[in-house]
Amino acid sequence: MDDHVSRILKAIKPLDEAAMQAARSRQDSLTKPQGSLGRLEELAIRIAGIKGEMSLALEHKAIVTMAADHGVVAEGVSAYPQEVTRQMVYNFLQGGAGINVLAGHIGARVIVVDMGVVSGFEPHAELVCKMIDFGTRNMARGPAMTRQQAIDTIRAGIEIVEAEVARGLDVIGTGDMGIGNTTASAAICAAITGEPVEKVTGRGTGVNDEQLAHKVGVIQQALAANQPDPRDLLDVLAKVGGFEIGGLAGVMLGAAAHRVPVMLDGFISGAAALIAAGLSPVAKDYFIAAHHSAEPGHGIMLEYLGLTPLLDLKMRLGEGTGAALGIFLAEAAVKLLTHMATFDEAGVSKQD
Amino acid sequence: MDDHVSRILKAIKPLDEAAMQAARSRQDSLTKPQGSLGRLEELAIRIAGIKGEMSLALEHKAIVTMAADHGVVAEGVSAYPQEVTRQMVYNFLQGGAGINVLAGHIGARVIVVDMGVVSGFEPHAELVCKMIDFGTRNMARGPAMTRQQAIDTIRAGIEIVEAEVARGLDVIGTGDMGIGNTTASAAICAAITGEPVEKVTGRGTGVNDEQLAHKVGVIQQALAANQPDPRDLLDVLAKVGGFEIGGLAGVMLGAAAHRVPVMLDGFISGAAALIAAGLSPVAKDYFIAAHHSAEPGHGIMLEYLGLTPLLDLKMRLGEGTGAALGIFLAEAAVKLLTHMATFDEAGVSKQD
Repeated sequence: MDDHVSRILKAIKPLDEAAMQAARSRQDSLTKPQGSLGRLEELAIRIAGIKGEMSLALEHKAIVTMAADHGVVAEGVSAYPQEVTRQMVYNFLQGGAGINVLAGHIGARVIVVDMGVVSGFEPHAELVCKMIDFGTRNMARGPAMTRQQAIDTIRAGIEIVEAEVARGLDVIGTGDMGIGNTTASAAICAAITGEPVEKVTGRGTGVNDEQLAHKVGVIQQALAANQPDPRDLLDVLAKVGGFEIGGLAGVMLGAAAHRVPVMLDGFISGAAALIAAGLSPVAKDYFIAAHHSAEPGHGIMLEYLGLTPLLDLKMRLGEGTGAALGIFLAEAAVKLLTHMATFDEAGVSKQD
Repeated sequence: MDDHVSRILKAIKPLDEAAMQAARSRQDSLTKPQGSLGRLEELAIRIAGIKGEMSLALEHKAIVTMAADHGVVAEGVSAYPQEVTRQMVYNFLQGGAGINVLAGHIGARVIVVDMGVVSGFEPHAELVCKMIDFGTRNMARGPAMTRQQAIDTIRAGIEIVEAEVARGLDVIGTGDMGIGNTTASAAICAAITGEPVEKVTGRGTGVNDEQLAHKVGVIQQALAANQPDPRDLLDVLAKVGGFEIGGLAGVMLGAAAHRVPVMLDGFISGAAALIAAGLSPVAKDYFIAAHHSAEPGHGIMLEYLGLTPLLDLKMRLGEGTGAALGIFLAEAAVKLLTHMATFDEAGVSKQD
């Protein structure tokens, strides 16, 4: 394991119980029936535990949207051609994608990262290059990447989040773009949770029944050909993962080490979270599940991780769009905890 | 029926099908797999139908928070003393309540309305006075208000929303404050839906098991004593309703007449929506259910109205707090529809 990655794994500490207790006490002093803000109360308490302080603000918000290509698209697993990954990166850079609109709506910056798109990109001021290779290899015929590349993806994610921490970062959302990446994510889910491939595989960008059956077969073939070891997360990532999935796992671990709440997007972020939580079980407490994706495997991932999603809007776009909505709720929760008046301040009578 | 109210009821028209069709076509041209924004896509389409145009912005946002007292608190149905209604109105005016924080977070103005708080208020620049009486009468012993007062509450709500339309209004959220108002709302729910009182009655601000059983008994007594006629919504409102509930029904009808989307808060807004939708079934298409409240009767109301809530965060505060979160989602949905690039604009390849 890389030195930087090892250092980060060691730096991840449990949540701060004292900060959570202080937040809990304050919740009960605010002008509302106890518990009446429901999950927003729990959310603010958890964020206090993550940040290690109760008086916090989620001022600096970022979404990291990582793009990469997948060799397995050669098997015909996606409804869209591979060039869409690259085209969508340009769409992100021009501000025309869903994530640009939602990030703007919540006041977050979008960090677009090339983790390994097939044709590469000309240098661009707004595009962060962490390219590992020109897309992964076809996992149906062998490992998607080498073990060293898997480690490199994680280190790249850590570097990204550390650069953002240096700019000021109070919460980070995870996002992805990569034609073929629901195939890799389903394979990771099956490998780690042990659930059957049929149960964790969905339509991704929208394949039909016949294509879905084919996609299931391709994932089964990839798992049979590679035999990923579920106790060795780097082995799973290398054999059936993707560069953006490893990168996002690195973002999650780096954020946890720096006590930054991680707002998980949907299915691809879920696969990355399975890798990250496997490498550091304590990191999981820093993860917040923004939403329940329409991809059927996502619920299985969240249950395995012990996370309850905040939203269920039948979304399945990726890019970090669900995470953006979750960050809005997190900011709302924190503002309620910190800005509402207490019973004493407002002169409101308490419960009889 | 009052002339103004009758005119408003006649002015409510069906959704604009052409605008919805235009919105639907645009959704399918945007750079995302079709349908991948899930309920946000439907929401933007419905808002286009409400506003009668596809190119829209939810720039002017307001939450109407109506306060009133309930004579039925004499029966001991609430965990909080009656003076809390008045105290919370001051908290709203000073900006310390949950709704102030959330409205600020989404950029909405809060309209605080006295619909009939027991002790009245000194004039205050930020408090809209539409006081009907010093609280309702005790519905366990007779009608909560006269039929004329019920009509007056609805007209007051219409006047409020028309004043806001004059200031500029693209979406309105409904909110309430009134110790005892979950008791009135449960009675309305039972009277209109025909469901048993035990099933629609919850803990409100937090009564214990014994108090809950007592609350159920009081509501049963109110229904038996008054025999509200479910086919006559004004009769239901007068006999077992509340001034803020009637006022909110008026807001809903007035907004629908002016083609303004209505974001419904929780249980009390649900009771108002039952009254409003009974008076004008076509108005219901203008209502969006922001969230599923933790009050058990709320799900029954929403099912009766045919509305699926956007959020389920176990909230039960009222004030319009759920509506504020729903308005954020509505604005997100509309921005996605109007600001995202199309496949042609972004040069992104379509599905194979």
